[in-house]
This record gives sequence, structure tokens and C-alpha cells, in this order.
Amino acid sequence: MTHQFDTETRLSPEGDGCFAGTVHPAWNIGDNPNGGYLLSLAMDALRQAAPQHADPLSVTVHYQRPGLASQPCTVRTEILRTGRTLTTARASLHQEGGARLEVLAALGELHADASHRLMPPMPPMPAPEHCLTRSGDEQGVRLPILDRVDIRLHPEEARAGAVGKAEVSGWIRFRDGRPPDALAALLFVDAFPPSVFGLLGMVGWVPTIELTVHVRRRPAPGWMLGQFRTLDMIDGRIVEDGMLWDSNGDLVAQSRQLALVRQA
Amino acid sequence: MTHQFDTETRLSPEGDGCFAGTVHPAWNIGDNPNGGYLLSLAMDALRQAAPQHADPLSVTVHYQRPGLASQPCTVRTEILRTGRTLTTARASLHQEGGARLEVLAALGELHADASHRLMPPMPPMPAPEHCLTRSGDEQGVRLPILDRVDIRLHPEEARAGAVGKAEVSGWIRFRDGRPPDALAALLFVDAFPPSVFGLLGMVGWVPTIELTVHVRRRPAPGWMLGQFRTLDMIDGRIVEDGMLWDSNGDLVAQSRQLALVRQA
Repeated sequence: MTHQFDTETRLSPEGDGCFAGTVHPAWNIGDNPNGGYLLSLAMDALRQAAPQHADPLSVTVHYQRPGLASQPCTVRTEILRTGRTLTTARASLHQEGGARLEVLAALGELHADASHRLMPPMPPMPAPEHCLTRSGDEQGVRLPILDRVDIRLHPEEARAGAVGKAEVSGWIRFRDGRPPDALAALLFVDAFPPSVFGLLGMVGWVPTIELTVHVRRRPAPGWMLGQFRTLDMIDGRIVEDGMLWDSNGDLVAQSRQLALVRQA
Repeated sequence: MTHQFDTETRLSPEGDGCFAGTVHPAWNIGDNPNGGYLLSLAMDALRQAAPQHADPLSVTVHYQRPGLASQPCTVRTEILRTGRTLTTARASLHQEGGARLEVLAALGELHADASHRLMPPMPPMPAPEHCLTRSGDEQGVRLPILDRVDIRLHPEEARAGAVGKAEVSGWIRFRDGRPPDALAALLFVDAFPPSVFGLLGMVGWVPTIELTVHVRRRPAPGWMLGQFRTLDMIDGRIVEDGMLWDSNGDLVAQSRQLALVRQA
């Protein structure tokens, strides 16, 4: 069965480590493509360029310019080093007018049955049917991406400024039934409302400067749970930390991003 | 006044974004150059390549091969984008036999008097004279770098496995009196014993795959305080989080690294 996320992130090899495709408008936040979706396009190219190490272990992306929805894109990849267990590679996504993002990644192999010595426990959360479906109202923009991913926010955190702290949590899954995988984790950590929403109330666009994701295992099927917190807001820039767990309660990913907040 | 850190990280421009220098053995961990020191060499090149935005806001480094102490090195830089407030750039450090590390960074301007809305408080810590000077005994290797930086570990955490959790904290400063700055923060977050030491006891080399540092302000003069924790140890890989505060108690940097632990 073919799923939307796979179809709409698929690039075609063009030779010399270059891949071509289209930035699909279905993953927009307002008029701009979601950053996690743009990253997923770059990751599809890296997986094709390094098929022996197709799982993302550590992925850093720097956003240089907003992407252009409905426009073609080219991803250029370069394998920096490949060893027995690890490949280090870079990728850049280009559209008319210049580079949109730059990725530096370590790729390897993840396991669904990974053993752990330390692991942050999944926080308590009401069942998805008792949470509030994310609508985008909190940012005052239309969110086409919510036709692709179903996000259920913690009912006590879903009103602007409700919790008096910069924290957002909830469930997430693809709407078309696609099971989550390591790639989806990269999308999911960038699909929740900005965590400063719980502290500041209505906020506009919170543009990401840089996002780093560590994927720790392949997720089990079902809903994933995300929790995002900003501990540090200095000079109008935040560092937001996130974690994602799978339906077994196992940690799948940790994320951290540096972003701008226009409201001081 | 000239300080060791500045002299021993200084590179000479060679044109075309390339810079040349030497990997000084004074910053070794055992026989290998410290990762934070190698990163500092790459950062010296980036600061010269982007003088209008000389402060590191977000720096990610992937370590591809151990550096070679006492050997020449070349750093190649590329400015990916430069705007009014931000420059995105990459750098790679090369020695005989190939690339040693790859850096992707956002550079801009930091302030010593940055205002904050959210900031993790400095944890309580005995004064430096009541802490234990780091000797390197916990890793069973000689640490030449400790002639360059003075590290005073929390007295209750300084014995192997002492605290039953993966946490290490303490004070740090340059031995020759050089005041800390944003660049020093990149070195200091990688100079403490691995935090898994407090949980597992004696551990050997804990090689870093990738390190990301967010520098948040320019530090005040004096000792800096570092705290490092591993919350997540899965399939022999750890994600270690760190924070650095300055002598005013203000947060200067957050760090996170993905590393291998040989002991399971």
C-alpha cells in the first residue's frame, strides 16, 4: 500500500548524488512548507545515497530560506565518510532562488527491539479520544499539514497560555494509517505547536534556525506521544527540547531546536 | 596578553576559504586530541571566514576520525548563506589520511548582558576550593589537557559510580588566566569526564559521534560551572546533555552529544 508521506517525499535520482522532486503543498504551515517535511525530502535523498545505512541516528538541519510550496526542488548529497556501522553525509535542498536548507547527518542501523540501560519514561497523558485535535487556531494560520497528520493535544495545555509554562504535549499519527518509522520521527518532532504557546499565548511564526534530532529506535506501530519544552529563552531566541515515545512507551527520538520568537 | 588557547588554535589563511595550522598535543586526552579542541580549530577558521558574525549561536560537529596530535591540519570553510543577523557556514578539518571532522554552524552576535524570559538556574555547587581537581584517573589515561584547563569536580560525584546516576558537574577555567568567551564554551562542554562515569564507574574512551552546542550569551569573567547528564542510553549509544553557567549564574551554553559507550 502506498502512503501519502512516502509518495510526497519521493525523489528521483539524477546522477552525481543529485535527486529531484516537488515540494508538495499538502504539508504547509500557512503558505510555507513545514520544516520537518522539507527535512524529510532531504532524508529521502540521503537514504538513496547511502542505502547500506538508511536509518537516521543524528540529523542536524539549518534552515536558510523558507521553502516554496508546489515548486520543484533538487537535493544534492555528499557522502563524507562511510564505515562499517556509520555513514556521515550532508545534503542541501535547492529551489529557484537558492539553497533552502543544509543537512548534516550520521546514518546507521536502528532496531525496534533496542535494549536500554537508561530511558526517560513516557509521561502520563489522557487517551487520544480525551485530547483536543490540533486545529491551528493557536497560531491564527491555516495548517494544511493537519490533513496529513492527526495531532491530539493534552486537554489542559491546548489553550493559549493555559499552563503558564512553555510546554506542549500530545499524540501524533499519520491520517492515512501509515505506520510510524524512523523517518516519520523527523517529521513528528516539528509538527506540534511551538511550546512557548503554553507560556506566551498566541504566537506567530516561530522560525527554526536549526533543528537536531537523535533517533534512538524504530517505533512500534500506533500513536506516538510527543512532549516539547522550552527551558531557555534568551535575547528572543529559544532552545526547545522534545521527546517522542512509541505505543510501547519506549523512547524513539530526542530533538532540540534553536528558533526565533518575535514576541519578547 | 597572549593566552595558550588563542595561540594553539590560531590558523593562517591560505586563500579560497582554506586555513592551515597545527594540532597541538597539549590538548590531548591520552594520545588523541580532545574533540572540543579540534572543534575550536575549525571555529577559528570560521570566525576568520565570517568576521561580521563571529559568535557561534549553534554549532554541530560530526567526528569522522580521531585527530593526529602534533601534525599539521587544514580547515576548509564554505559560507552557505549570510544575512543581516546570521551566517550559516560549514567547515571541515583535514589531516594526512583524510577528513577528521565536519562542522555546520550558525554564527551571529551574542551579548554579555542578554535579557532572558526563561533560563535554567545554576545548580548548587560547593566552592572550587571544596571540589576535587580532575586528574583523569577515572578513565585510566593521562590527560595533558588538564595542564590547560583546571576542572574541579563536585566532591560527591568524583568517585567512579559514586552517585548511581549518569551525572557529572563541576567548575572549569583556563589555567593561564584567559577569561572565558563564547569560543571557550565549545571547548568546556567537552572537557568534563563522561557523565556515565557516575553510573557505570570506570569507563574507557567514550567516542563522540556528534556534538551540538548552543551558545546563548557571552560569559562573565571567572569560573564557569558545567553540569552534564545522560538520560538516555540505548543500544550502547548515549545522548548526553550539558549546560554551562558563568560566574554571574547566567546560562551561557547548552550542549548535547551522541556518543558510543563500549561497556553495555
